[in-house]
Amino acid sequence: MPGALSIDQLAAAVSALAGGDLSARIVGDGRRTVAGVATLEQADTDHLCFLANPRYRRLAAVTRAGALVLSEPDRQELFPDGSQASVLIVCEAAYAWFAFAAQSLAPKIEPAPGCAPGAVVHPAAKLDPSSSIGPLAVIDEGACIGPRVQVGAGCTVGRGVSIGEATRLYPGVRIYHGCRIGARCILHSGCVIGADGFGFAPFRGAWVKIPQTGAVLIGDDVEVGAGTTIDRGAIGDTVIEEGVKIDNLVQIGHNCRIGAHSAIAGCVGIAGSATIGRRCQLGGASMIQGHITIADGSVIAGATAITRDIRQAGFYTGIYPFMPNRDWERSAALLRHLDELRERIRRLEASVRAQRTESDR
Amino acid sequence: MPGALSIDQLAAAVSALAGGDLSARIVGDGRRTVAGVATLEQADTDHLCFLANPRYRRLAAVTRAGALVLSEPDRQELFPDGSQASVLIVCEAAYAWFAFAAQSLAPKIEPAPGCAPGAVVHPAAKLDPSSSIGPLAVIDEGACIGPRVQVGAGCTVGRGVSIGEATRLYPGVRIYHGCRIGARCILHSGCVIGADGFGFAPFRGAWVKIPQTGAVLIGDDVEVGAGTTIDRGAIGDTVIEEGVKIDNLVQIGHNCRIGAHSAIAGCVGIAGSATIGRRCQLGGASMIQGHITIADGSVIAGATAITRDIRQAGFYTGIYPFMPNRDWERSAALLRHLDELRERIRRLEASVRAQRTESDR
Amino acid sequence: MPGALSIDQLAAAVSALAGGDLSARIVGDGRRTVAGVATLEQADTDHLCFLANPRYRRLAAVTRAGALVLSEPDRQELFPDGSQASVLIVCEAAYAWFAFAAQSLAPKIEPAPGCAPGAVVHPAAKLDPSSSIGPLAVIDEGACIGPRVQVGAGCTVGRGVSIGEATRLYPGVRIYHGCRIGARCILHSGCVIGADGFGFAPFRGAWVKIPQTGAVLIGDDVEVGAGTTIDRGAIGDTVIEEGVKIDNLVQIGHNCRIGAHSAIAGCVGIAGSATIGRRCQLGGASMIQGHITIADGSVIAGATAITRDIRQAGFYTGIYPFMPNRDWERSAALLRHLDELRERIRRLEASVRAQRTESDR
Repeated sequence: MPGALSIDQLAAAVSALAGGDLSARIVGDGRRTVAGVATLEQADTDHLCFLANPRYRRLAAVTRAGALVLSEPDRQELFPDGSQASVLIVCEAAYAWFAFAAQSLAPKIEPAPGCAPGAVVHPAAKLDPSSSIGPLAVIDEGACIGPRVQVGAGCTVGRGVSIGEATRLYPGVRIYHGCRIGARCILHSGCVIGADGFGFAPFRGAWVKIPQTGAVLIGDDVEVGAGTTIDRGAIGDTVIEEGVKIDNLVQIGHNCRIGAHSAIAGCVGIAGSATIGRRCQLGGASMIQGHITIADGSVIAGATAITRDIRQAGFYTGIYPFMPNRDWERSAALLRHLDELRERIRRLEASVRAQRTESDR
Repeated sequence: MPGALSIDQLAAAVSALAGGDLSARIVGDGRRTVAGVATLEQADTDHLCFLANPRYRRLAAVTRAGALVLSEPDRQELFPDGSQASVLIVCEAAYAWFAFAAQSLAPKIEPAPGCAPGAVVHPAAKLDPSSSIGPLAVIDEGACIGPRVQVGAGCTVGRGVSIGEATRLYPGVRIYHGCRIGARCILHSGCVIGADGFGFAPFRGAWVKIPQTGAVLIGDDVEVGAGTTIDRGAIGDTVIEEGVKIDNLVQIGHNCRIGAHSAIAGCVGIAGSATIGRRCQLGGASMIQGHITIADGSVIAGATAITRDIRQAGFYTGIYPFMPNRDWERSAALLRHLDELRERIRRLEASVRAQRTESDR
Repeated sequence: MPGALSIDQLAAAVSALAGGDLSARIVGDGRRTVAGVATLEQADTDHLCFLANPRYRRLAAVTRAGALVLSEPDRQELFPDGSQASVLIVCEAAYAWFAFAAQSLAPKIEPAPGCAPGAVVHPAAKLDPSSSIGPLAVIDEGACIGPRVQVGAGCTVGRGVSIGEATRLYPGVRIYHGCRIGARCILHSGCVIGADGFGFAPFRGAWVKIPQTGAVLIGDDVEVGAGTTIDRGAIGDTVIEEGVKIDNLVQIGHNCRIGAHSAIAGCVGIAGSATIGRRCQLGGASMIQGHITIADGSVIAGATAITRDIRQAGFYTGIYPFMPNRDWERSAALLRHLDELRERIRRLEASVRAQRTESDR
């Protein structure tokens, strides 16, 4: 079975990827091999599975998987007597162990180094010889492509852009002039790095463009989703710190700073000059107003609009609860007139107070 | 008039397209010809128009259109005495009749089969000889392009992708490796099929990537809008069933399943592992949380966030009603303190009860 | 210092760009030169800065900038005695003056006229000799590219498209057949102009496509952000009037009309056949329902859904205020039952009225 690894080999690979930091106890025969990952339901004897969410315990109890990563409490609950068919990989951080293991098992198809047919590379661009430039990619003057970088088909890399080692651009990524991308980043198709920020001065009923003279700086180990747009700074740069993960169709305005290891789900909009702290999590379709600061470690629910600074980490939400349309119409109409309800309460309070005073006399 | 059809010819064409299922009664001279479609206001005597929305009846009454598709009740209302200038095409499903007729009248400019200049096709890709590959498109190893498929300029079709017959990719579509697209689909520019889902395991304050090993499977007769992104599955596939229509800038997360003939309007976000039923309608900018199930036939209003399962078909809404900003500030402030209003009501109820008890004594 | 301009030269350049309309008073030595713009904090003696927002007055008071644009009241407040290090440029419209000045200072790197290597231009396309077609761009039959137009790398310009003079397309812009783009427009990477509108007729449980026979007409001086999509009309055209500024990831449906000089921030969705007035401002992630009309000069807050016509200019908002999640859960639960609260108030009012009547007896 090509590409298969024994559990022992996997454990060594995981340990190496995790910097030696992630050990697991193997219960069963570590020489058993697995060739890929699968869901608990669909797994066969050559698959690796994981159990992280307790609501899948029932599936885990009957999985045919060759190996199963899980926590010690889950093991005790499910397989107290050691009678299971799967080799168990018992680990506190079961999901992370599985992630590293899945990386080790994933097939690696690396393009050959060098320039594919039809790529257009400016003579004054610098390509590391180990980098790979896909068909019909365009690399402009002064761009600097690091070791083992993969530039996909049809990408355009602007003047003076630098891309750090082992970063991967999927087909059709656009990077404007002057931007800097760190090492080991992944940029998905259709993302646009460094387009002009939205800056205009009003003048006699029209808009005058403010040239956007900054760039976008992206740290190491950042992932940028398909169709996501990150604008260059107006004056000064837009900064995405290391380890940030950004999903698809996210818009990040000019001069934002996104703190290290924050995660931003799909369809989020972040207006200009917002500062998102480190290790924040922004739920899908949330919206962050411009010039706002969000504290490290904040978690924003999906579909929530943040219109003021968040000074203290916490879990914040603002979603109109959905209802059958007829109920909503009533609820929305009342919401428009909440102040009248309050006024009626005030008047009632006054009446009741007056009656009480009267009856006290 | 090149491209013009008589009403009788049109009726035959519509009947053929509709599988013989859609008959109409012609009132007037079926030999009259029309060459195109127009709005009721702008129509001339060689145009076909339709009336579907009652609020346009007044315009229909005075249109110059050569032919008009409408329902029998509308005909009776507008032209009881048969004095109209237009040929009438009376049909219960007037809008569908018009749609098929407009398809028959639409100019067809088909590219010649074969590979345009500058396309880069891997030697191990399979192209049906009747397919057409646009200039500077890139077709990777093992891709399989079906009969009469049109791949637009600058598209990239990944390793092992298969595309069913008569499907059309507009310029700049990106399909990642291993995805399957059905027959007669339309994919618009800038859409990205099969980018990695957003899956990471937390580990020591950073994120570990979960390789996304599934693919995207798209059924027959699906339309995907410009800039829309559909992520590949983490483990297992993301599935778009037949007949689904997706508008622009929609994000569909990994491992979602969208039921047949559902329609998804622009700017919708669907988080990972959501299951949308058949024949659902999601309004523009609605948001569906991950791991949620929505019953067949559900209709979600625009700008509504669905945060829990919908078990029963219905029309669901959750939108904060807009108001002049000053009113909103008051309304929002009260909303933050609804529990206080409730508490005041409780206290009032207790007071009134106490007073009543007292006065009863 | 190459590219540097004296303040006097800048003032002349600004006046020329503004049509002679924008004068300023220079306080200090007009022969001093500046070479670029910077923030108040980071400016050095060869930088130009501006003060428009009063909350940055403190920074302006101590900036090292060589020149500072500001209003007369700000000058009086900050530098009453003329002791400042910076040359002052005193102007009522300080921000607009700065915008024009920054345009004058911005480095201009213009591509050489003509076709770059690998561009695919149909023999029946018309290119003005002063236009520049980037590498691997595709220009289709009958397209008409005006003077000094820049078409970026990898763009595709469809059949019969016309592009007005000095318009710039960044890499990877897609323009479908038949669309018309005005003069001096800027289209950013990944935007898609003229994809099919979302029009389908229901028929026997499936959807029948309505051919989208209109086009997109874009006026002069329009900017379209990265990843933004503007759909072609169904019957008749989608129209973007002159001077409109559109940010990233905006969706504009078929047959919309956007009035001149309106500004649309990121992630906005505008459904089909909406009419936005002139000089409107739509905040980020706001959503406009289809077939709606919005009055000239209206301002819509971010994240607000507009579900009915706006007949009178004003500032409109509809955002669920965000809160700590626990508070939100309570607030949302109450919102679902606002009608019960109202009912309890009604009953209280009746009780109190009854008691009063009783005690009056």
